[in-house]
Amino acid sequence: MPARQTWVDGAAGSSYDVDNLPYGVFSHSSWEGEQGRVGVRIGDHVLDLAPVAAAEMLEVAHVFEAPALNPLLALDRAHWSGVRRWIVSLLTDEAERGLVEPHLLPVDEVTLSMPFEVADYVDFYCSLDHASNVGKIFRPDAEPLLPNWRHLPVGYHGRAGTVVVSGTDVRRPCGQRKAPDQDQPTYGPTGRLDIECELGFVVGAPSAQGERVATSAFEEHVFGVLPLNDWSARDIQAWEYVPLGPFLGKSFATSVAGWVTPLEALDAARVDLPAQDPAPLDYLAVGPGAGYDIAFEVLLNGETVARPPYSSMYWSPAQMLAHMTVNGASLRTGDLFASGTVSGAERDQRGSFLELSWGGREPFGGPDSQRTFLEDGDTVTLRATAAGTLGGRIALGEVTGTITPAA
Amino acid sequence: MPARQTWVDGAAGSSYDVDNLPYGVFSHSSWEGEQGRVGVRIGDHVLDLAPVAAAEMLEVAHVFEAPALNPLLALDRAHWSGVRRWIVSLLTDEAERGLVEPHLLPVDEVTLSMPFEVADYVDFYCSLDHASNVGKIFRPDAEPLLPNWRHLPVGYHGRAGTVVVSGTDVRRPCGQRKAPDQDQPTYGPTGRLDIECELGFVVGAPSAQGERVATSAFEEHVFGVLPLNDWSARDIQAWEYVPLGPFLGKSFATSVAGWVTPLEALDAARVDLPAQDPAPLDYLAVGPGAGYDIAFEVLLNGETVARPPYSSMYWSPAQMLAHMTVNGASLRTGDLFASGTVSGAERDQRGSFLELSWGGREPFGGPDSQRTFLEDGDTVTLRATAAGTLGGRIALGEVTGTITPAA
Repeated sequence: MPARQTWVDGAAGSSYDVDNLPYGVFSHSSWEGEQGRVGVRIGDHVLDLAPVAAAEMLEVAHVFEAPALNPLLALDRAHWSGVRRWIVSLLTDEAERGLVEPHLLPVDEVTLSMPFEVADYVDFYCSLDHASNVGKIFRPDAEPLLPNWRHLPVGYHGRAGTVVVSGTDVRRPCGQRKAPDQDQPTYGPTGRLDIECELGFVVGAPSAQGERVATSAFEEHVFGVLPLNDWSARDIQAWEYVPLGPFLGKSFATSVAGWVTPLEALDAARVDLPAQDPAPLDYLAVGPGAGYDIAFEVLLNGETVARPPYSSMYWSPAQMLAHMTVNGASLRTGDLFASGTVSGAERDQRGSFLELSWGGREPFGGPDSQRTFLEDGDTVTLRATAAGTLGGRIALGEVTGTITPAA
Repeated sequence: MPARQTWVDGAAGSSYDVDNLPYGVFSHSSWEGEQGRVGVRIGDHVLDLAPVAAAEMLEVAHVFEAPALNPLLALDRAHWSGVRRWIVSLLTDEAERGLVEPHLLPVDEVTLSMPFEVADYVDFYCSLDHASNVGKIFRPDAEPLLPNWRHLPVGYHGRAGTVVVSGTDVRRPCGQRKAPDQDQPTYGPTGRLDIECELGFVVGAPSAQGERVATSAFEEHVFGVLPLNDWSARDIQAWEYVPLGPFLGKSFATSVAGWVTPLEALDAARVDLPAQDPAPLDYLAVGPGAGYDIAFEVLLNGETVARPPYSSMYWSPAQMLAHMTVNGASLRTGDLFASGTVSGAERDQRGSFLELSWGGREPFGGPDSQRTFLEDGDTVTLRATAAGTLGGRIALGEVTGTITPAA
């Protein structure tokens, strides 16, 4: 990262300085019927990359014209780095200012759309505290962790077609549920609508079917990260999930941030994993710095209700990737995998309402919005920050959604 | 269906007569570097639809030029019917012969590719006999069916990116597994590689997020069917599947036929479902004729080892569709959902090796190939036929795959 400061007004020292530079797909309020294209955020502005890249005859200029990040993702790590260096030089070299400045748009004049087309979506279950809390809530008399949990990052496939961008309303889902004290299931709106505060990983470079991806190849395949809210209907999930796992309790909507933060922006946020005991099998072995210290914040109607620490996660993203492909399952550009709920050891570090309310038994929240589960009209926002390479903190994309009543 | 007979040599009275007409994506052996396009099968020939549709200035001619069925799928039911009527007239009207005949290619000169781009893939668990068998094998002292099974079609999301066309080799997957008598899990090739004989349903018309699709709208959204083999590694699956369901035990490969049979071709195969007890909730209610009488055949290295009857399936595809969307999950063009293993009540009607060998305890097969689970080099082929509307039987696309050794 160059020591030179950006010439963009107000960006230097902000949480969107040149050590951040997340990508998104935007359209400007003045455009009529035009589809979105790729932009990068700097300070309170979005740089419209396509015209700048065209003017500079950049070899990969075409990737910025697409209404999704997929063509950029489909490049390789060397090109991702090259594009990032090029953007840093645009924004720090005064000589570029004349060309670039006309293409800086105030962020409050643009709308972000879904940043990429999701290929397959996989959700993991990598927080020891979350898995233990769920075990204690649902099976109070048994060992909280199931036998496989410390041996592999447990995961499952979710619905790629219902991943939506931050700001999209979420309709309260209906479905079948049966309380333990009921004889028969009934149909109706979920009464236990929940969030899951997660970090999502966006796959860029694909892999071949039949071959596995080593933990050491993580940075060759994963382009970047974004906060993710895996909305969950706990009553539907509890009734349906044996023996094939969550389905309709999760598939109605998953919200992601509109900005994808490149992995390189998180270099200063890398930390060691918590100790893994027992040591994982060889194909899951990782070295130092496999974890990320990212500070999440969960807001309910504008009030902070939890601060889940990503640094507490037991399984690293490189381990998730290696496990997901150990059977030869291929990766495609646009695959999305998520960490599972981020929960720390303390009560105010829990990343789901299920845990914050301890199964619905202990209301939480501010004096004006005591909650066990979500009510219609509630807005949930996830924010996250991490150490940047310039000494300050960078902001990851925010993900927000409001609950609308059942149909 | 017109009473007129097709003029295509050898097609009349065959299992690919004008009451069948499945669609696929093919390329001819003489093409160099050209991508595949849409064809329809008639007798032992494939009709290259794009040039014929262009010559006849068909309104939707462009859909046949694509290397996938998705543009055809993205039309609506009225257009699917219209295209089918047009093809029948081409193949039965002698006046069309001069135009059409040059575009009939012998089926043994073409290669089929993956017929459509899969959006989301969902796998159900709709056979009462299969679910009961699995329960008895894994939980011999408990009630075979779990409490939710008779109330909803249990399902989960699979990996769309590893769905492959018939003829693709399947590499034996590696992964973690732990036998009950082992202390610790180990890594290595699966020792319990299995098949699942299933019927897949291909979604054409999409639906909006937040809205549910009624059972009565099944034919508005589902374009057609194809046989599907959901390869499974039982040892990997048994260790990983609690509590979030199957993941790597299934995600390495799912094979589908190269031909998609339109739903209209199955009109004469519709039958009533077996009785459902208890009656399902209203959103899952269906009328008479919600089932399909399709006869499957499972061949191992050319020998028939099972004949699973689709007519025995407990849950209908309209119920799967209504359940999958009851929470407002949207449908996309190219979504694929499958029935789960088709097993009948008799031993020789079981659609998986797990059941045929009763958990690996009872070898089955011909004198030359006794098996419990699959060995390297084994070839499995699924075939299926159904009553056609002309009085004979139509063939569904065949799906075949050969096991190659672990990497």
